[in-house]
Order: sequence, then C-alpha cells, then structure tokens
Amino acid sequence: MRKVRLLVLNGPNLGFIGLRQPEIYGHRTIADLPALVAEMLGESSERLELQFHQANSEGHCIDRLEQAWKDGLDGIVLNAGAYTHTSLALADCLAWIGIPCVEVHISNIFARTDEPLRQKSMIGKNCIGCIAGFGLTGYALAVMALWRHITENPNFL
Amino acid sequence: MRKVRLLVLNGPNLGFIGLRQPEIYGHRTIADLPALVAEMLGESSERLELQFHQANSEGHCIDRLEQAWKDGLDGIVLNAGAYTHTSLALADCLAWIGIPCVEVHISNIFARTDEPLRQKSMIGKNCIGCIAGFGLTGYALAVMALWRHITENPNFL
Amino acid sequence: MRKVRLLVLNGPNLGFIGLRQPEIYGHRTIADLPALVAEMLGESSERLELQFHQANSEGHCIDRLEQAWKDGLDGIVLNAGAYTHTSLALADCLAWIGIPCVEVHISNIFARTDEPLRQKSMIGKNCIGCIAGFGLTGYALAVMALWRHITENPNFL
Amino acid sequence: MRKVRLLVLNGPNLGFIGLRQPEIYGHRTIADLPALVAEMLGESSERLELQFHQANSEGHCIDRLEQAWKDGLDGIVLNAGAYTHTSLALADCLAWIGIPCVEVHISNIFARTDEPLRQKSMIGKNCIGCIAGFGLTGYALAVMALWRHITENPNFL
Amino acid sequence: MRKVRLLVLNGPNLGFIGLRQPEIYGHRTIADLPALVAEMLGESSERLELQFHQANSEGHCIDRLEQAWKDGLDGIVLNAGAYTHTSLALADCLAWIGIPCVEVHISNIFARTDEPLRQKSMIGKNCIGCIAGFGLTGYALAVMALWRHITENPNFL
Amino acid sequence: MRKVRLLVLNGPNLGFIGLRQPEIYGHRTIADLPALVAEMLGESSERLELQFHQANSEGHCIDRLEQAWKDGLDGIVLNAGAYTHTSLALADCLAWIGIPCVEVHISNIFARTDEPLRQKSMIGKNCIGCIAGFGLTGYALAVMALWRHITENPNFL
Amino acid sequence: MRKVRLLVLNGPNLGFIGLRQPEIYGHRTIADLPALVAEMLGESSERLELQFHQANSEGHCIDRLEQAWKDGLDGIVLNAGAYTHTSLALADCLAWIGIPCVEVHISNIFARTDEPLRQKSMIGKNCIGCIAGFGLTGYALAVMALWRHITENPNFL
Amino acid sequence: MRKVRLLVLNGPNLGFIGLRQPEIYGHRTIADLPALVAEMLGESSERLELQFHQANSEGHCIDRLEQAWKDGLDGIVLNAGAYTHTSLALADCLAWIGIPCVEVHISNIFARTDEPLRQKSMIGKNCIGCIAGFGLTGYALAVMALWRHITENPNFL
Amino acid sequence: MRKVRLLVLNGPNLGFIGLRQPEIYGHRTIADLPALVAEMLGESSERLELQFHQANSEGHCIDRLEQAWKDGLDGIVLNAGAYTHTSLALADCLAWIGIPCVEVHISNIFARTDEPLRQKSMIGKNCIGCIAGFGLTGYALAVMALWRHITENPNFL
Amino acid sequence: MRKVRLLVLNGPNLGFIGLRQPEIYGHRTIADLPALVAEMLGESSERLELQFHQANSEGHCIDRLEQAWKDGLDGIVLNAGAYTHTSLALADCLAWIGIPCVEVHISNIFARTDEPLRQKSMIGKNCIGCIAGFGLTGYALAVMALWRHITENPNFL
Amino acid sequence: MRKVRLLVLNGPNLGFIGLRQPEIYGHRTIADLPALVAEMLGESSERLELQFHQANSEGHCIDRLEQAWKDGLDGIVLNAGAYTHTSLALADCLAWIGIPCVEVHISNIFARTDEPLRQKSMIGKNCIGCIAGFGLTGYALAVMALWRHITENPNFL
Amino acid sequence: MRKVRLLVLNGPNLGFIGLRQPEIYGHRTIADLPALVAEMLGESSERLELQFHQANSEGHCIDRLEQAWKDGLDGIVLNAGAYTHTSLALADCLAWIGIPCVEVHISNIFARTDEPLRQKSMIGKNCIGCIAGFGLTGYALAVMALWRHITENPNFL
Repeated sequence: MRKVRLLVLNGPNLGFIGLRQPEIYGHRTIADLPALVAEMLGESSERLELQFHQANSEGHCIDRLEQAWKDGLDGIVLNAGAYTHTSLALADCLAWIGIPCVEVHISNIFARTDEPLRQKSMIGKNCIGCIAGFGLTGYALAVMALWRHITENPNFL
Repeated sequence: MRKVRLLVLNGPNLGFIGLRQPEIYGHRTIADLPALVAEMLGESSERLELQFHQANSEGHCIDRLEQAWKDGLDGIVLNAGAYTHTSLALADCLAWIGIPCVEVHISNIFARTDEPLRQKSMIGKNCIGCIAGFGLTGYALAVMALWRHITENPNFL
Repeated sequence: MRKVRLLVLNGPNLGFIGLRQPEIYGHRTIADLPALVAEMLGESSERLELQFHQANSEGHCIDRLEQAWKDGLDGIVLNAGAYTHTSLALADCLAWIGIPCVEVHISNIFARTDEPLRQKSMIGKNCIGCIAGFGLTGYALAVMALWRHITENPNFL
Repeated sequence: MRKVRLLVLNGPNLGFIGLRQPEIYGHRTIADLPALVAEMLGESSERLELQFHQANSEGHCIDRLEQAWKDGLDGIVLNAGAYTHTSLALADCLAWIGIPCVEVHISNIFARTDEPLRQKSMIGKNCIGCIAGFGLTGYALAVMALWRHITENPNFL
Repeated sequence: MRKVRLLVLNGPNLGFIGLRQPEIYGHRTIADLPALVAEMLGESSERLELQFHQANSEGHCIDRLEQAWKDGLDGIVLNAGAYTHTSLALADCLAWIGIPCVEVHISNIFARTDEPLRQKSMIGKNCIGCIAGFGLTGYALAVMALWRHITENPNFL
Repeated sequence: MRKVRLLVLNGPNLGFIGLRQPEIYGHRTIADLPALVAEMLGESSERLELQFHQANSEGHCIDRLEQAWKDGLDGIVLNAGAYTHTSLALADCLAWIGIPCVEVHISNIFARTDEPLRQKSMIGKNCIGCIAGFGLTGYALAVMALWRHITENPNFL
Repeated sequence: MRKVRLLVLNGPNLGFIGLRQPEIYGHRTIADLPALVAEMLGESSERLELQFHQANSEGHCIDRLEQAWKDGLDGIVLNAGAYTHTSLALADCLAWIGIPCVEVHISNIFARTDEPLRQKSMIGKNCIGCIAGFGLTGYALAVMALWRHITENPNFL
Repeated sequence: MRKVRLLVLNGPNLGFIGLRQPEIYGHRTIADLPALVAEMLGESSERLELQFHQANSEGHCIDRLEQAWKDGLDGIVLNAGAYTHTSLALADCLAWIGIPCVEVHISNIFARTDEPLRQKSMIGKNCIGCIAGFGLTGYALAVMALWRHITENPNFL
Repeated sequence: MRKVRLLVLNGPNLGFIGLRQPEIYGHRTIADLPALVAEMLGESSERLELQFHQANSEGHCIDRLEQAWKDGLDGIVLNAGAYTHTSLALADCLAWIGIPCVEVHISNIFARTDEPLRQKSMIGKNCIGCIAGFGLTGYALAVMALWRHITENPNFL
Repeated sequence: MRKVRLLVLNGPNLGFIGLRQPEIYGHRTIADLPALVAEMLGESSERLELQFHQANSEGHCIDRLEQAWKDGLDGIVLNAGAYTHTSLALADCLAWIGIPCVEVHISNIFARTDEPLRQKSMIGKNCIGCIAGFGLTGYALAVMALWRHITENPNFL
Repeated sequence: MRKVRLLVLNGPNLGFIGLRQPEIYGHRTIADLPALVAEMLGESSERLELQFHQANSEGHCIDRLEQAWKDGLDGIVLNAGAYTHTSLALADCLAWIGIPCVEVHISNIFARTDEPLRQKSMIGKNCIGCIAGFGLTGYALAVMALWRHITENPNFL
Repeated sequence: MRKVRLLVLNGPNLGFIGLRQPEIYGHRTIADLPALVAEMLGESSERLELQFHQANSEGHCIDRLEQAWKDGLDGIVLNAGAYTHTSLALADCLAWIGIPCVEVHISNIFARTDEPLRQKSMIGKNCIGCIAGFGLTGYALAVMALWRHITENPNFL
C-alpha cells in the first residue's frame, strides 16, 4: 500500500512555538511532531509522510494549499492561527481543493469566552473535524484522525 | 502505578447510536469504545478504567458528574449532545467538580454554519479541550488526550 | 385497516390544566380530549388509539418519545410548553425518531409580541405543522390533521 | 339560527395554487375548499357561508377586509403570504376591524429556520390562532376552529 | 398673492377615522379639518387650498404624490399610517418630488415603546418636520407649520 | 376662567440659541416666544402664563420639573436637547409629576438617520405628543397644542 | 395566629455548598439556615416553618413547586442556580402557582459583567423581589422579607 | 430560430427617469433602451422582443410578472426600486414563476453604506445575476447577459 | 467597639417618596428608616450611625460619595434610581472609593421585562450585593446585610 | 484617440478557474476574456489594452493596484474573491488611487442568503458599479461598462 | 505674538488623581502639568496659558465649556472620564463652541476589550484628535499637539 | 547610556503619504519624521535610533515585527492602517513579542462615526497607548511617549 502524504500547515505567529517563552510552552517545537506521531501511531507511522510549512501571510497559506492540491496530497492538518477567525479566503481555498482537512488549535479556543471572535471558526465548515486544547499532542491526534479517515476510505489504495 | 479512571458520559439522544439508522451511522456503539481504545492506546490501555453512562436529562447528567467527583475519578469524556449549547447548569457543574474534561462531538459542530446555536459551546470554557467530527474515533482520541494530560501531570501517582 | 396510534405528549406545567383556575381555563382537562376528538372526527375515531403522557422534565419527555419510537407509533401531538422555546434536545429527538409530529399550543404564542422568546419555536423545524390559539380544541384539530396526514400516505396499511 | 359568514382571504402569489406545479402541490385549488369543509364539518357546514378573495396587493387586501367589516362578517381565514412577515398595515387593519381571524399557512413556516424572516408573523398578534403546515387541509381546520370560536360565544345568535 | 395649495394624504386604515369607534375617537373626521384650520389659522385660511386623499395601497399613495408634483402643489401633510415604518418606496418618492412635507401621526408614536418598529419613521428623513400625538388637531398644526414654512420663503410669490 | 400656566424648559446647549451663529439660526431667541405665541394664538394668549427655564444639568432639569409639580402648573413644553436620547431620569420625572408634556425639537430629529441615537426619544413615552423640525415656531405650536389639550379637558376650570 | 410555611428550594449544583471548598465558602450549609433565621428574626421565628429541597433537574424543581401549591404553602425562597438564566419552564411554574417567591443568589450575579447571560434572570418577572451577593445570609434576608410580605397582608390569618 | 422575448419591469418611482431633473440624470428615458440595446447587441437585436412596464404598486408588479409567466416570456430585467429591499412578496413571485431574471439598479446600491437597508436585496436570491451602477446602460448590459444566458441554453429552440 | 457609619444615598426622583401618591406608596418616607432598622436590627442598632442624602444630579451623587470617602464611612446603601441604568460615572466612583456598597431598588427591577434597560445595572459590578422589590423594607435589609458584612470582617475594630 | 488601458485583477482562489472542476465551470479561463470582449465589443476592442493579474495575497493585490496608479491606467475590473467581504485595506486602496473600478463576481453573491457575510461588499463603496452572476461573461460586461464610462467622459482624450 | 490660551478640563472622578492610591498612580497631580509641559515644550511654554477645571457634573462641564467660548480660548484638553462614553450633551457642546479639542485618557481605553462601552467615545467625533494610555504625560502631549495645531494655523496672530 | 531603538512600522496604503494628493496631505513624508522628532525631543534625540518599514501585506508586517523581536528593539510605533480594524493576527503578534507599542493614526479614527468598523481597534488591547488625528506630528508624539515609557523604566540601562 502506498504512503499517506499529509501537509501540516501553520499560520501566523506559529513560527516560534517552542523557541519563545519555553518556561510556559516548553521546548517542544513542530519539529518534534514526527517523533510524537511515531510514538502514538506505532509502526503505521512508517507509511506516513509529513510535510511542514509555516507562513505569516494569508496569501502564502493559500499558495501552499494550492500546491498541496497540485501535488495530490491526502490530507491537511491546519492550524490557521488568527486566520481561523478572519479568513474567508482560506475557507474558500479548503472548499475548492477538496482535500480532507483537520483544524487544530494549541489552546482550547472554545474556552475563550472573553473573546467571542476566538470562539468562531470561519474555516471549520470546510474541515472534517476539529481538535483544540492539547498543545503539540493535538497535531498528533489530528494526524491519527486523518490516518483513519483516509485509510478506512474504501477508495484508498 | 495506579489505574486512570475515566467517565464517558453521553447526554440526550445518544442512547441509540449504532442501533438506529445503521446504514448511516454504522453498527458501532459506545460499547465498542474499549476495544477501539485498546487498539489505539496499546498496552497502556490495561491501566485504564472506563465507566459509561447515558442520560437524557440535564439534571441526571449533573447527578452523574457529582458522583464522579465523590468517587474521585481522574477525567471525564463528555458528549453533552444538545445540552452542549443550552446548559449553563452543566457548565457550572464542570467548573466546581474540577475534574479534567474533554468535550467530544460525533459530527463537526463547527461546520454547522446553518445553525449558529450549534457552533457555540456553553461547556467549552470548563473543558481542557475539544474533539469534534470523528464519530466514535473521537471518543478514543479524547481518552488518549486525557491519558496524556493526566499521566504527564507530575502530581499523578 | 389497522388502528392509527398517536401519542399526545404534554410538557412542563401542563399537568393541571382544567384543575387550576377553572374560572379562566374552564373545567375541561386533557382527559376530555377523546370525547372531543370523537365528536369532531366522527366514526373514524374508532380506528384511533390515543396515548397520553405529561412530564415536567425535558429528559423525561425525550424518554417518552424514544419509547414511542420503540413502540412504532404513527404520530405525535406535542405541546412542549416552555421547552418549545428552549429545548434543542427535544428538537434533536424529534429529528431522529422521525415520527410525524404536530406542535400544539393552547394560546396563540405568535401573538405574544411582548415576549420575543415565546414567538420562536425550536422544535418547529422538526414538526409537520403547528396549531396554536384554540385551547383544547387545538389538540383535536391536531389529531385530525395527523389522521389525514397518516391515512392519506399511500404506504399506510 | 343564522348562518356563520366567513371570508377566506388569500394574499400575494396564492392565485395559482393547484394550477402551477401540480406534480408538487397537487391539483386541488381553493375552489375545492367548500367540499373539504363539508366533509370535515358534516351537516353543520350547511349553516356556513364562505366568501373567497385573492389579491396580490397589500392595499387591496386591506380594502377587502374593510369591506368584510362593513358587511358584518363573522370571521376571517387569512393566508397573507409574504405580507404575513412584512405588512404592518395589514396587522393594523385586523386590529381595528375586530373580526376574529385565523392565520393559515400552506407550509410550516415555523420550520423554515433558514429564513428567519419567515418565522416571524407581523399579523399574529391580531389573530386568535394560527394553523400552518397542512396544505389546503389547513384552511378547513381554520374554518372548523372559527366555527367553534363563533358559535360557542354566548353572544352569538 | 396666490393661494397656498396643500395635499393632505392619508395612508392605510385611515379611511374610517371618526366613523368607527366614535366613543373612543370622537365623531370628527378628516372632513372637519378645513373648519378646524380656519379656526386656528384665522383669515389667512382663505388663501389656503386643501386637497384630500386616502389610499390603502402603498403604490396608490406614490401615484398621488407624483400627481401632486405634476400639479405643482406647495406642500404635503402626510399621515402614512403603517407605511411610515415599512415603506422605503414612499420615502424615495418624497425625496424626488421635493415638495415640503410634514409627517403627522394621530397618536404619539414615539410613546409606543412596546413596539420598536413604530418608533422608527422611514419617511422622516425626507420631511421637514413631524407632529404626533394630537389627533385631528395635529393635521391643523401641520397645515400651520407648512403655511409658515412656505410663505416665509423669500422665493414664494 | 383662570389662566393656563405652562413651563417652557430647555435643556443642555440651548442657552445661546439666537445669540450664536445668527447667520444660521437667525436672531430670534426664546425671549421672542411670547410674541410669536400671541400672534398665533390670538387673544386667547392673554389667558396664558409662560415660565421659562434653561439648564445644562440633567439634575437641574429634574429639580425644575419637581418645582412645577409643587407649583401645580398645567403643562410643560420640553426641549431636553441631548438628554432626550440619554436621560432615563428625566423620563421617570415626567412619569411621576404627571403634568401633560409636549416634546419639542428645533430640528427634525427623525431625519437624522446618520445618528440612530438621535432618532430615539427616551422621554417620548411620557409625553402627550411631539413636534420637531420647525425651529422656534415649534415651541409656539406646542403651546397651542397644550392649550387645546388643557382647555378642552372637561375638568379644567 | 397560624404558622407561616415557606419552601426553600435550591436548584442545580447547590447540593454541596458548605461541603466542597470550605476554605472558600466556609463550612456553613443550608442546614444552618434555621439557626441563622432564628438569630435574625428573633422570637417571631417560632411561628415560621421552613421546608428544604434541592434538585439538579429542572423538571424536579417544577414538581416540587407544584407540590408546594398543592400543600398551600405561603412563600418560596428560590435559588434556581443556573436555571435562573435559562429556564422559561420554571418561570412559567412560578406564574401559575401564584405563591410569593423571593429570588436568592449566593454571589452578586449583577456584578458578573463578564458573563452577560448571568446578569439576566428569566424567573425575576414572577418574583416579588431579589436578593443577591450575601451568601447564606441572603437566604435569611429573603425569609425576613417574605415574613413581612406575608404577615403584613391584611388577608393573612 | 424564434425570438427571445423579455420583460423590462420597473418598480416604484421609476416612471419619470429622464423627465425629472434632466440636469442630473440626463434626458434618456427607458424608451431609449431599444436603440441602446441595438447599438450594443448588434444585429442579434433583431431577434429580441422587449416589453416594458412600470408600476408603483408592489401588487401590480406581481400581477405583471404573473402575466409574463402566463405568456411564456424568456427572461425578466427587473429594477424593483425600493421594493428590492422590502418586498418578500416579489421575491416569492420570482421564485415560483421560474423565469430567469436579472436585477438592475441605476446607481451602485452596494456603495450606499450610509443606508444599510439599501445594500441588501431581498429578490437577489431568486435572480441569476445583478448589475448596478451604470444608469440606463445597466439595462442594456442586463439584456445582453440574459440573451447569452437564454440562447446558450441547449434547450432553447 | 466603635460605631458603624453608613450613608444612605438616594438618587433622582426619590426625594418625594411617601409624599406623593400616598394611596399607592403609603406615607412612609426615608425618615422612617431608622425606626424600621431599629425594629429589625434590635439593640445592635444603637451602634449604627445612618447619614441620609438625596440628589437629582449625577454629579452631586458623586460629590457625596467622594465626601463619604473623605469621612471614612464604613458602608453605602445606594438607590441610584434611573442612574442605576445609565451612569458609568457613578460606577467608576464606587470602584475607586472602595467602600462596601449595597444596591437597593424599591421595586423589583428584574421583573420589568418590558423595559430591558431597567433590567441592567451599570453599578452592580461595584457593589457587594443587591436587594430589590421590598419597598422601604429593602433599605433596612440592606443595612442589616452591610452590618453583618462589616462587623464580621476580622479587620473591623 | 489613444487606447483605453484596463487592469483585470483577480484575488484569492481565482487562479485555477477553468482548470479545476471543468465539468462544473467549463474550460474557459481568464485567458479567454480578450476573445470574448472582442466578440461583444466589436471593433472598438482594438482600442482596448487589457492587463491581467492574479494574487492570493491581500497585500499583493494592493501592490498591483498601486502599480496601476503609477502607470496611469484608465480603469480596473476587480474580482477580489473573498477579500470582497473582509478587506478594508483593499477598499482603502481603491479610494486613494481613484481609478474607476467595476466589481465583478462569477456567481451571484447576492443570492447567497445562507452566508450573510457574502452578501456584503466592503469594496463596493469605492466602485462605480457591480456585476455578479454571469461567470466569465461578467468580466466582459464589466469591460464594456468601463469602456462607456471612460470614453463618454468629456475629459477623455 | 499673543499667548495661546488653553482649558484643561477634567470630568467625573478625576479630582483626586495623585491623592488617592499613590502607590498605584504615583503622587503626580494635575497641578504638576505646567512643569511637565514646560519640560517638554521648552521655552515656547512661556507663551502658553493653561486654565484648569474639574467637575463631577455633566452640566457643569458644559457650563465651563460655554465659558471658554465666551472667553475666546484657543483650545481644549478634555478628559471627560466616564462621560466620554455616555454624554451626547457634551458632544453637542463641543460641536457648537467650535474650539479645537483634544480628547485625553489616562489609561488606554482602547485596550479595555472587556468593557465594550469604554471603547466607544461619544465626543470623539467633535475632537481633532485623541491621546490615550500615557497617564499625566498624555495631557502634556495633548498640549503640544494643540500648540502645533493652533500656531501652525495661518490665521493665528 | 545605550541608545533607544524603535521601529516605525506603517501598514497598507501608507507608502505614498506625502507623494499623493500633496494639496491635501502636504509634502511631508515619513522621511521627514527624524527631523520632526529631533525638533520636538531636543538633544535627547541623539540617543534615539529609528528604523522604518512599510508593507501592504498583513503577513509581511508580522514578519517585520518578529524581526524586531529577534533584534531586541525597545519599542514600536505602529500605524497598521486598515489592518488596525481587521487583523487579529497582528494583534496576536504584538501580544507575544511583548515590545511596548504605540498605535498611531494620521486621522482621528474615533471621529469616523459613519464607519463603525473604523472606530474599533483590534490591536489596541496589545498597545500601551494610542495617538490619533495629528498627521505626521502624531508619529513624533508617539516617539516621545515611547521614549518616556522606556527611559523611565527602572530596568532600562
């Protein structure tokens, strides 16, 4: 069976996670994700190919998703940061590329009742699911969820 | 090391999942969760104790959560169904019992832009995280997330 | 031809209609409904079986509707009282049990412009129709409407 | 005892019901109402006089209601179509003519959660009741409800 | 000096004032306005020409205002009834005909805090002023206000 | 017959009308009101007593209205300026003193669609009527309206 | 003179006050209320009968209030917890049982500007008064207020 | 090939375009449209039949659209004027007659940010497209757009 | 032990309670409060010093509260009348003077669902509690609540 | 006469129109626009110069418009995609460059009543007009409208 | 050249800044402003005349601004405290006196997202600019900004 | 003492200030800021290092702020243009880089009551203060405010 190829795309202000304020966020960076996935997914993780990208610009995020469509990737793990709440253009992009996408958030955005804008996702309607509140672990859970979604699809070869 | 004891609490209209409309939802019921968790969590699952409850009444859900507090459980996996969006009393209960809780939804409620009420969780602010859109798999992911949250806590013995 | 079996379900605060404040509401209770239906429906009413239930609890209402689904009833006459305006859980229940339901209100809730909440029905979207403002007569009209809806269905045997 | 005289008034876009899209709406037109009423009301229907009118213009509907007031009619069955939701002038007219009015809708407007405007009736506050969702049958139910409302009034001679 | 020619235009449901419910509204009709104006305006009233019109239809009101423009009338006293609050088309008409208009209401609509819609005038922005709450006297005050507005204009001949 | 005693009360920023920007507002001040009233009311004006007050402070306006109540005045002409839109306390005062009050505005506040706040009167619900848009003439029209309201009252001696 | 009989009804999440988090809430429980009332009310408290109930379910609260109505109790002290803000059904129940009710809250809900929902009481309109912010003392103040309300009523025997 | 038959329907206040305020709007009237279309559409315009109608009344506009349906016209160019923003009845009519309709506005209504109501079209959802801001030219563009829409339909004969 | 010194501050329109409309409000004035407190508080009331002030002006209320701060008073009983709902400045004053304040209302403002503005307190967030609906008795209950709040404070000497 | 130089600027997600989902959108791409314009505009199209640009980034769209201003272009055809609804910055740019701009949308955005955000254009206020719902034809209509707007300007040389 | 004369006007609750809570706000009072201005403005400050006023009453603030107008002052530095957000009357006053005014706030009110009311200035529209967040320094910056605004005006002598 | 290093960052549409429309904005560009600062700050300005950047893209603005964080700059003067009102991502960036930032606007955005969106700053909550309405002078005032904020910090060396 062929590999499952996923793009892990991080949006604005997510380029320094693990480097800034480690006393709060710890020292784990997105570079630690493959190991974490391997630990959680076991040997299946050998059949997994993860691509990583981070961009502060809404347009560059769209560029990268269009590239994923051209490359025929199997799934997207997307932490769109603040664009989650403001970018209709990203939402439109997810709609037309049609690649299964899981929305991830490091913190539990649904708990931020002090900022109503943060509780509303503009991209959610074009995602198969959402995982929020578990830090880097959330990315790994998203990969697992996508893995199951993709490999359980009878059309997957 | 002692066992991790979790309550999986389902709210209204969730008592017949897997029994009704199997052509849509499949035949898997909440009773299949332990096997799924074992498959995903591996041998760690032996140290896991799962309790299950379902209630259609808001008050009974609160009663059950109070029991969990009296029993000293370690975590809650809560799919509150429609009460997710209307029950301030459930939210208050999660606040005072203080047991780590993960909110689960079978469908991706954040994709239901046609029903704004469904996009807003009243209980989210008292949960450590949220997982939505992955069917029964979501419960298993929630158990995994709780497992890590609890066992990585240095106070856990 | 077999009987048409209907559940007449009353929600909170509807257990004492006809007993309290008779100078306002009169002495007719829900127990007078069969006679009224017989008068309005004529001999067809012999082929009608009416079950009655009243509950103050949202969860118990759902329990009773689930029972109706298990019993294979043909229709529901539902006066959900205040839950009409607040219960997403009842609405969800009507959606999945899939039994034709007519929403009934004793007073004309659409005339209560002083209380906007009372003008909005959360369960209406899952009902085939609504009858409001005619007191106990409204229940009888609902039974008539359901009778026609059910018996005119070519799949009814 | 004298006859009960009712006006059945249809508003905009209701002139071709039964003629257009019969594969959807069937072939029954408003002209079939007397027979349906006779069937449902039995011999009492002999003491009933029904007048019919349809107008696309808000002002003409008011003209017709004013005529009903001058003629001393006993009741109104009103399907105001889209004016239900936009016409304060029609609502004012019902208020001052003071003739008992039942609001009728062919479809269950309270189920149209996709169009909030359709869920709000401006004329409801000046009607004794509302019947929605039962097609032509709804007009007949409205006639029955009015018949009872009028003939049970001790001042009716 | 030439006569001042005014149109007194009444909108929907204003055709029977003074005829219906005289115990509440009294027996004075719009036909009594000239005498009342004469009494209040004194001999100046001889130089005043009043035209009267009433229509229940929004479109007919616009037709009549367009006629006033074609006739070169000097001013409008307009009680638009419920269209005050719903008719953007009437507002547009006042804007383009450019004839000074005074908005009149029999009751004090600004006191109807129970109906927010009634407190908002869509036509007000195209009127020179507003008089509400004084019954038929309000029309006479409006005529006086228009008289001063028009005759104090240095371009008036 | 005794005199009719009225208070003409002006609120904030109304102390310099006629003195500031005369090229726009003209040179007429509130002091010109008696003459204008006399001209419009004719010899009846001899039986009229007008008291004048202006205050920039909400509390002082209330003090003055309480004084009017203690003095047993017959009516109030009130231009509350900006307090029209913000002062619930002034509204409460009008409610309890119970003296007939006419709300006056120099400009047509209902035409200020650019400032929604200006279109809403908090004091209107406690006034018998409203006159707006006619400059100083509006005060005179208000006096006339009050004169009629008071002297036509059969209890007036 | 006969005794004054009151029901003290606590809603959801109020069953463990005094038992949980005593370092914050202290060790006083609802069971300490009679002594506190006796201290504050003095010897009058001998003529007072207090009944206590707590329920997590909205429906059970209504059941208990209906029982109070059947028992002919004189007054209700109600802390409805979160149902204060969401339960139209409880509000309806207070309306029809017609027993004087005082709404109590342990904390000052009107100070919780961070949660607008908490500042709005759905049951307030059917209560004679409200006391919030004084902990257990608030219940005692409510009893005193009810005592005066009931015993000062000339119909009380 | 047969002719393409279109109705150009203008709503309220559009009867005098070109006649009033020519210094602003110019002298071109709707009567100049055929020439303009001929110029823009070239010889294809010979196969085009344009019918024109203008009405100030919402009901008459509906009457005319129903006539178009009875006549089997191919398309509608509709400038509904103010009814664009207030008429649910017109919207309903377009829905059921099912004739392709293009919404036209003389000015760019989407630029009128000062009047939010003007930025919202109630009829748009039942139109194939919208053209705004180009004066009479907009009608010609609409005819061209309809021409292409209709003649490119493979079912057109 | 030293005396407890409290300010009872009444805001706008509260200067004539007991003097106006005694048939409704009775003859009790704020001057009767000491006796009522003595009756309810018993001998403790000897250690209580009550100061009274009433002002119609928002600014004067602030002046008086600032004076209380300069005088080192122990508590405030504040009925801010309409300023309760509109005065951010009063709220700010309570915040910085830091003296415990109890908000009092003669009527149950939370029952005034007809006026949403009346249900919202701007000063509540800076008060320790709120008492509404008990007339003059409410002031006495507030004094009792403050007495306990102050004397139970271990820092009170 | 010199050429008319226009920029056709497409925003996010519009780079693959005609390439993706051709079974839905057909195979026509933006590259087909010159031919379509030539067909619709006839020989005038020889005097037309069209520049094309597409960018997924809001900032790059602004960069390109600034370039158009530096190059002195005559007009803009702008399909801003999702930025239509979210980009105040694009709106500001159109305002200061001052080049006539026509807003184009492939689908009829005013028909998307399910997504209110899509019905509101932030850039519309700085455009001379809007064309929506006609696919690629809409771009051609926009070019025609701009051509007339520019060449009919008496200052155009 | 003549002196520049400015009024520094402080509104409610600003009379004790520097005196209360010095551990938080420091000991600097408004009396320290001249020295601070001299330090920042250098020798130009000799040509500056600063007047100071503080008032808790909205009306007194207006009185003082009217005095400034009568005195012909050159500019206003206004910290209106809570009236910034509630006083339409102050806004009106700034509009008609026409003296350049700079709005100052001690804290950064635009950062108070927890209180939406605090983020909206009612007086801003009548000020030339706004400075917030810099404590007493902000007043000095405002004086500098006004100095430049006034002295750079070519009409200043 | 070391230099104070500040970044002056301008967002979209701010690249041509001083070059476009000089008759309105004058000829001063951002390049004139150092001289203006030197003039206002005096010799202290020698210890000041100003860096300048302008970008039309939201993402590029974030890139530049991240660079400032890496470079350890002391403060930010930020005119985010339209992104002020729409960019949650910029707000997030300011939050995590933690460098003191002053928000600057050329015009007084708080005066633009015609565009509510412009009155709300999304970035304000993460700025120490805001200066608006003073053109280029505002940047200089912001530098002065930052200078004081930074050098008065006892931790500054």
